[in-house]
Amino acid sequence: MKIGIIGYGQMGSGAAYNLNKKHDLFIYDKFKSDSHGIKSFCTVEKIFSNCQITFSFLPNDKILINAHENKSNGILNYLKKNDIHISCSTVSPETSKKLEKIYSEKKAFFICAPIFARPDGMKNKQAIIPISGKYKIYQKIKPIIESFSKSHTFVGEEIGNANVIKLCGNFLICNAIQSISEALLTADEHGLERLTVIRFLSSSIFDCLIYKGYGDRIAAFDHDPHANAHFPLSLGKKDINLFKSISNKSKNNYPFLDSLLKNFKSATKKGNGHLDWSAISLENQKL
Amino acid sequence: MKIGIIGYGQMGSGAAYNLNKKHDLFIYDKFKSDSHGIKSFCTVEKIFSNCQITFSFLPNDKILINAHENKSNGILNYLKKNDIHISCSTVSPETSKKLEKIYSEKKAFFICAPIFARPDGMKNKQAIIPISGKYKIYQKIKPIIESFSKSHTFVGEEIGNANVIKLCGNFLICNAIQSISEALLTADEHGLERLTVIRFLSSSIFDCLIYKGYGDRIAAFDHDPHANAHFPLSLGKKDINLFKSISNKSKNNYPFLDSLLKNFKSATKKGNGHLDWSAISLENQKL
Repeated sequence: MKIGIIGYGQMGSGAAYNLNKKHDLFIYDKFKSDSHGIKSFCTVEKIFSNCQITFSFLPNDKILINAHENKSNGILNYLKKNDIHISCSTVSPETSKKLEKIYSEKKAFFICAPIFARPDGMKNKQAIIPISGKYKIYQKIKPIIESFSKSHTFVGEEIGNANVIKLCGNFLICNAIQSISEALLTADEHGLERLTVIRFLSSSIFDCLIYKGYGDRIAAFDHDPHANAHFPLSLGKKDINLFKSISNKSKNNYPFLDSLLKNFKSATKKGNGHLDWSAISLENQKL
Repeated sequence: MKIGIIGYGQMGSGAAYNLNKKHDLFIYDKFKSDSHGIKSFCTVEKIFSNCQITFSFLPNDKILINAHENKSNGILNYLKKNDIHISCSTVSPETSKKLEKIYSEKKAFFICAPIFARPDGMKNKQAIIPISGKYKIYQKIKPIIESFSKSHTFVGEEIGNANVIKLCGNFLICNAIQSISEALLTADEHGLERLTVIRFLSSSIFDCLIYKGYGDRIAAFDHDPHANAHFPLSLGKKDINLFKSISNKSKNNYPFLDSLLKNFKSATKKGNGHLDWSAISLENQKL
């Protein structure tokens, strides 16, 4: 099948690495023109004139909207009836609703499939994906999603559902980072080896991906950028701010959210935006 | 083997249920005298005159110390050379250090083996146990520990190590409760089914005991006491205060700990101490 990919960063290229095995890919990236073995870089126009199905992997709401609306080569210049766009970016439910409305007017389909994975997990088919949008379209794209991910769940026709779940998930990951950090500060002060403590817990009551991965990093104060397994603090800040924007703080208390936002702010002020987002834990140490 | 058990509450009786299959039990509980099928209730004196190995399952530091020091039937009246006491309670490392010193003077052995399990898990051999104390004694009691638990880890000869790890673990559990609560408030406001959201996450990136168990409870606002799977908020408050007491707040920032303490305080004020400790999540809703 001919499949379009917009955004060939670490996530898009990871998906392409797997999709390329079975499909003909048409790839567009604003900043790239060689494809590391995939000879298929082209224009947005060429993607939409060849492919019914296009994935996008973009860093934020503004860039996703601009990829549609910009006058020179925006998607909306080329989108036709029955085209399917699977948006894999972490954006707000409002952005998805706005775009779905436009797609609906053109009788095209917008699907949300934001991805839980770091770049190395993306390449190794470890991605976990909540999906929302029209069920009949979900059924059509299901085999393609399965071909490059570990698991996925259809979470409803309401387009923003998958975005809300993704933001809740990222919020929980960030809370786990902060929690582990506070626990290990105390373990450390009592002379226990940080890695022993977190590995005991992440192999028993917290025996899961997030506590294992971030636990080891936090124990070792290892927040440097890793070439293939990196999620920058600057993107994490964007996601936690998105979670804030969809949370009704007049109705409920969010003490943990408030603490995370403070740590992101102070970490950014120190110029740590390029580090892994687990570096917010450094903000717990008084200087 | 003849084994003593001091404290026949939900945890002690769960251990006894399993130990009774292979061993002769001698049980003491301040408030109980019938044994639900185990015809072995007796005095502390009788335990220590018959058993070299005794477990205790007591609710807090004060009661553990009193069980040793009280003049009428305290353990220290009867403790002899080479006796082994395995303390399974969640107490501070300082209490353990204090008691180990006394045991050492009597050439007896104090071992810390605080337990991660709810009562039903205790009965079903699902307990996970960090153990600290003299390694030669650990080797001796290992088969007994294995006979009533799922897994255990020796975490060093420094007696307080297991207590620190237990308090770090309980602190992490409580943080997971608060985090899930904030995430689900937002999911809820966007019309997503709370249980769908947490089950997606607790079967993927948070696929572990704590997120599964507490996730479902929090999603359903189910904080009522459950006969066999209950951990009261009042005990949780004690544990989080213990964590606070061993954390150096002058040296580090603990924003999550501060938030938890506030929620425990307000939940207690409302008379919710008898509910499951996941009821601290109710404090996130403004009235």
